[in-house]
Amino acid sequence: MLKRSELKHLQQQGERILSQHGIAITDAERSNIEVAELGLNEVQKQGLILLTYINTDRYCAKELILLPRQTCPEHKHPPVEGDPGKMETFRCRSGQVYLYVEGESTAAPVARVPAGSEDYYTVFHEIQLGPGEQFTIPPNTLHWFQAGDEGAVVSEFSSTSRDEADIFTDPRVERIPQIVED
Amino acid sequence: MLKRSELKHLQQQGERILSQHGIAITDAERSNIEVAELGLNEVQKQGLILLTYINTDRYCAKELILLPRQTCPEHKHPPVEGDPGKMETFRCRSGQVYLYVEGESTAAPVARVPAGSEDYYTVFHEIQLGPGEQFTIPPNTLHWFQAGDEGAVVSEFSSTSRDEADIFTDPRVERIPQIVED
Repeated sequence: MLKRSELKHLQQQGERILSQHGIAITDAERSNIEVAELGLNEVQKQGLILLTYINTDRYCAKELILLPRQTCPEHKHPPVEGDPGKMETFRCRSGQVYLYVEGESTAAPVARVPAGSEDYYTVFHEIQLGPGEQFTIPPNTLHWFQAGDEGAVVSEFSSTSRDEADIFTDPRVERIPQIVED
Repeated sequence: MLKRSELKHLQQQGERILSQHGIAITDAERSNIEVAELGLNEVQKQGLILLTYINTDRYCAKELILLPRQTCPEHKHPPVEGDPGKMETFRCRSGQVYLYVEGESTAAPVARVPAGSEDYYTVFHEIQLGPGEQFTIPPNTLHWFQAGDEGAVVSEFSSTSRDEADIFTDPRVERIPQIVED
């Protein structure tokens, strides 16, 4: 649940962060900045600010904005109607991102699992991404990610996005947030 | 035909332009900066510097770097083996880009057709892109583009790239350049 005023505030924050990193957006895009509140009522800890540049039936490109230590909870993109599931490349533009995917667990992961949600983080193969570094996540693969202390901006290049099909490990997550008027 | 020394020089120029715009790349990417010389022996007028971040069988993302008034000659991406042809979104990151596609000709186009190549520029429906503005070019559609006086950086989000399948209006163009040692 996201209050209209908080949505507005986070949109402005996202806009400011993009601008600080020299990423220009149009006025129309400004009001399309999406706040993925995810229904956990702690968007600054578990959530994401994003801007979708283009999403066609063939490809998609977004800018993801993470506040300091903000975490996008564990999820995967399953096969949908003949599509093998979304494949995505995360390219870090600024800051640090700690990305976790299926595979051998990293001994001492840098990210901190959000308190109270420990049961819903199950993959710990760590990939650290700094500016200019990228990683491609295969379809139907569990993953989650957290920004470092400075936050991060990440470009996402992918096949078609079908957010409503995403499967989150945490059953409390609602991918499409409810906005409530203040 | 591109001399090894000129390739190196243009790669460095591309790297510098990206860096000036706060776009971080890795050391490995630095040496993968591509110079599309196109065989016309005037790469600074007709050519392109580019960096492919990712090209999978599902999507592709590149950064295109255009020197001041540099032109990418008219071409299209035809259907290939069941694929309807590359669809691409150009997003201007900095500078100005004048993009021309099929459709009603613009009365007084801003770009100047490269001298001596007039016969090979046939579409004049103009789209002007400044920072943050973008346009999606349908598959199998003729297009060409030129940077303004300051040059430009353009992010390209697209379906799979198959450069060798591109069809250029100018039969002299060779998409895959020959590098000659100095």
